[in-house]
Amino acid sequence: MQSDLLDYQCSLCGKNYSIEETTYTCPGDGGNLDVILDYANINKQFQPKSIFSSSEHSLWRYLPLLPVNDPGGMGTPLHKAGYTPVYTANRLADKLGMDFLWVKDESRNPTASFKDRASAIVLARGREIGAEVIVTASTGNAGAALAGMAAAIGQKAVIFAPRTAPPAKIAQLLIFGAKVYLVDGTYDDAFDLTIQASDEFGWYCRNTGYNPFTTEGKKTAALEIWEWMENLQPGLLRPLSVFVSVGDGNIISGLHKGFKDLMQLGWIESMPRIFGVQAEGSAAIARAYFEGTENITAVTAKTIADSISVDLPRDGVRAVRAARESGGGYIVVSDEAILSAIAELGRIGIFAEPAGATAYAGLVKAIQSDLIKPDEPVLVINTGSGLKDVRAAMQAVIEPVIIDPTLEALKRVID
Amino acid sequence: MQSDLLDYQCSLCGKNYSIEETTYTCPGDGGNLDVILDYANINKQFQPKSIFSSSEHSLWRYLPLLPVNDPGGMGTPLHKAGYTPVYTANRLADKLGMDFLWVKDESRNPTASFKDRASAIVLARGREIGAEVIVTASTGNAGAALAGMAAAIGQKAVIFAPRTAPPAKIAQLLIFGAKVYLVDGTYDDAFDLTIQASDEFGWYCRNTGYNPFTTEGKKTAALEIWEWMENLQPGLLRPLSVFVSVGDGNIISGLHKGFKDLMQLGWIESMPRIFGVQAEGSAAIARAYFEGTENITAVTAKTIADSISVDLPRDGVRAVRAARESGGGYIVVSDEAILSAIAELGRIGIFAEPAGATAYAGLVKAIQSDLIKPDEPVLVINTGSGLKDVRAAMQAVIEPVIIDPTLEALKRVID
Repeated sequence: MQSDLLDYQCSLCGKNYSIEETTYTCPGDGGNLDVILDYANINKQFQPKSIFSSSEHSLWRYLPLLPVNDPGGMGTPLHKAGYTPVYTANRLADKLGMDFLWVKDESRNPTASFKDRASAIVLARGREIGAEVIVTASTGNAGAALAGMAAAIGQKAVIFAPRTAPPAKIAQLLIFGAKVYLVDGTYDDAFDLTIQASDEFGWYCRNTGYNPFTTEGKKTAALEIWEWMENLQPGLLRPLSVFVSVGDGNIISGLHKGFKDLMQLGWIESMPRIFGVQAEGSAAIARAYFEGTENITAVTAKTIADSISVDLPRDGVRAVRAARESGGGYIVVSDEAILSAIAELGRIGIFAEPAGATAYAGLVKAIQSDLIKPDEPVLVINTGSGLKDVRAAMQAVIEPVIIDPTLEALKRVID
Repeated sequence: MQSDLLDYQCSLCGKNYSIEETTYTCPGDGGNLDVILDYANINKQFQPKSIFSSSEHSLWRYLPLLPVNDPGGMGTPLHKAGYTPVYTANRLADKLGMDFLWVKDESRNPTASFKDRASAIVLARGREIGAEVIVTASTGNAGAALAGMAAAIGQKAVIFAPRTAPPAKIAQLLIFGAKVYLVDGTYDDAFDLTIQASDEFGWYCRNTGYNPFTTEGKKTAALEIWEWMENLQPGLLRPLSVFVSVGDGNIISGLHKGFKDLMQLGWIESMPRIFGVQAEGSAAIARAYFEGTENITAVTAKTIADSISVDLPRDGVRAVRAARESGGGYIVVSDEAILSAIAELGRIGIFAEPAGATAYAGLVKAIQSDLIKPDEPVLVINTGSGLKDVRAAMQAVIEPVIIDPTLEALKRVID
């Protein structure tokens, strides 16, 4: 199948570029590029119903809306990314006094995070352009996603991650057989080195907020939310508010892009409100949003939520717009609130990593501060599995009791 | 829906018991109980086609073959257990000189292990009998599965685990809000204490190889293999060999029970061969199989594969029979072979915990020793996620290089 990829448009200067002219960012001002599709042609060939009836239980059911020709890797983990479950969270809703609350659980992706979506699409693109090596900087999840998806199809991958990444995330990178370099520095240092290395060695760079195809992968979560809502209550996407954690801003930009594509196609009448949640110690985008600017100023990031710990967000402008243009907003939460959110989600059977629970922490604050009214329906996205950061999880719970294996010992501690 | 649960049959003495007469094991000889269904009635009401067309993408699509009335927990993680993907493993097949090889990936269950299947069914049963507290002994995964599924529906759960369980597994138990007691002893000590505690406090005991409903949950993997094979190549289940790791013997017994149910229903003509794989240091069942006996003698278990580290297997008799009666067999592998298997599976994008990779290690040995011919189709089951035991994973890989974040530093190490 031939994709409907037309060209790129710079999110800063608005100028269009053909796909031959540039690979990553705007040659003029370095702005992030939006992928422009041939919406008229898509509309001629497809209808929502035909997509909803796909037997493909993965993000590849939305191939007609994606800028790649073919998923590849049929029958491998690459082919099983996305299409994650949406759980009802009635007990949490009751606790918050809310009428409707859902959690979309991205930890059920092949490598247990949202990032599989981006890696799946970038790998498909990589094959089309004949990339020999695909490289990415990562705080852990994006790297694991690239390494895992690449392993699935036998593609060479190189990962640069900060040496401070949680052990489970580093283990994942290594197990998947990627070439891993731990950088004695921050994520931002790894990011810059990755771009230098891809220029130097001709590698295809997957960096988030740099390669325009990551956004296209991430938008598939918005398409899934759309399909889920259409099945639940057709045409009522608008009252929904979507909460998602924000680090470099690429996931929230991807969600926004997905809904914008659906608007372009005329398949939805209005989009849900999108709320970004940042950790206090890594809140460069939220600060710009509150100050009413699109100028993103770097911070010195420090938060327990390693996946969203970013000094200089690389997709900040579009991330600010995602909230502003959808009528959503930004919320900033403390590490303590994030740890509480891990425990709260755990009690309904969802084990989230700190960055995953951050979105729920944001909802709690939004309800407390009246930003969300109790009768407004909300969907919270958990972006990754708690198994990826056990050290953080253990800070959210009380240490268990250790006993001798006897009934007497048990009785002594049981109350 | 009213289930077709008829009664229990002791796997040792063959005597039948009504569901009122006993809850766990044979009152006569303590043997494991098989759940007997009203196969004639199932056959009257259902056909494979009606089951295959279910829109339920979870193990609950097989509700007509399960001894519970209702899943409960609609829209929660409990409702999303099972229906795991089967991946083609062409590159591993090539390496082993095989024609057909697949991996069924149980790490994609809600709490990332096979055990969610058992916990989902035991919880459904617990609700039917009005259990206030459900308790289990666990090396980690069964407990996490019970804790997670219980959290999903707000059921009280108590877990006894050896204090030596991997940190990620203990973190999972705690995050899901279960009451956790770490036992200063082995899994077997925790097992015995759990039974004493359930007798003493009137808790419903989920213990594996004790509660007959765990097998019914685990059999759903066999039903999925059946449906997958029918879609792939109808009627050709027989040439398939299924490889699975074995600890207490309950998973392999569950697989066997699933295929036996299908035979009873006349829905399959013959069953696949089932191969159990045990770690050298925890091989009580394999030893009995090799000695041609059903007498299981305890060992002092020691293996890196903590999920299958068991002194006295509680479902050993049925586990021996699963291999013998299906024309399969047993294979014993070293911890070194298990670590290699983790790395091999990783290179096709599957991150398995040691017990999960054990099945693949068994296949490698079976091919080397001509137990399996290269043209025989094989399905290997990965029973759990490698994220649950990062310490073990790190033993399977080479430590990554640490560099300064400069192109010069990268160039110095790149070859």
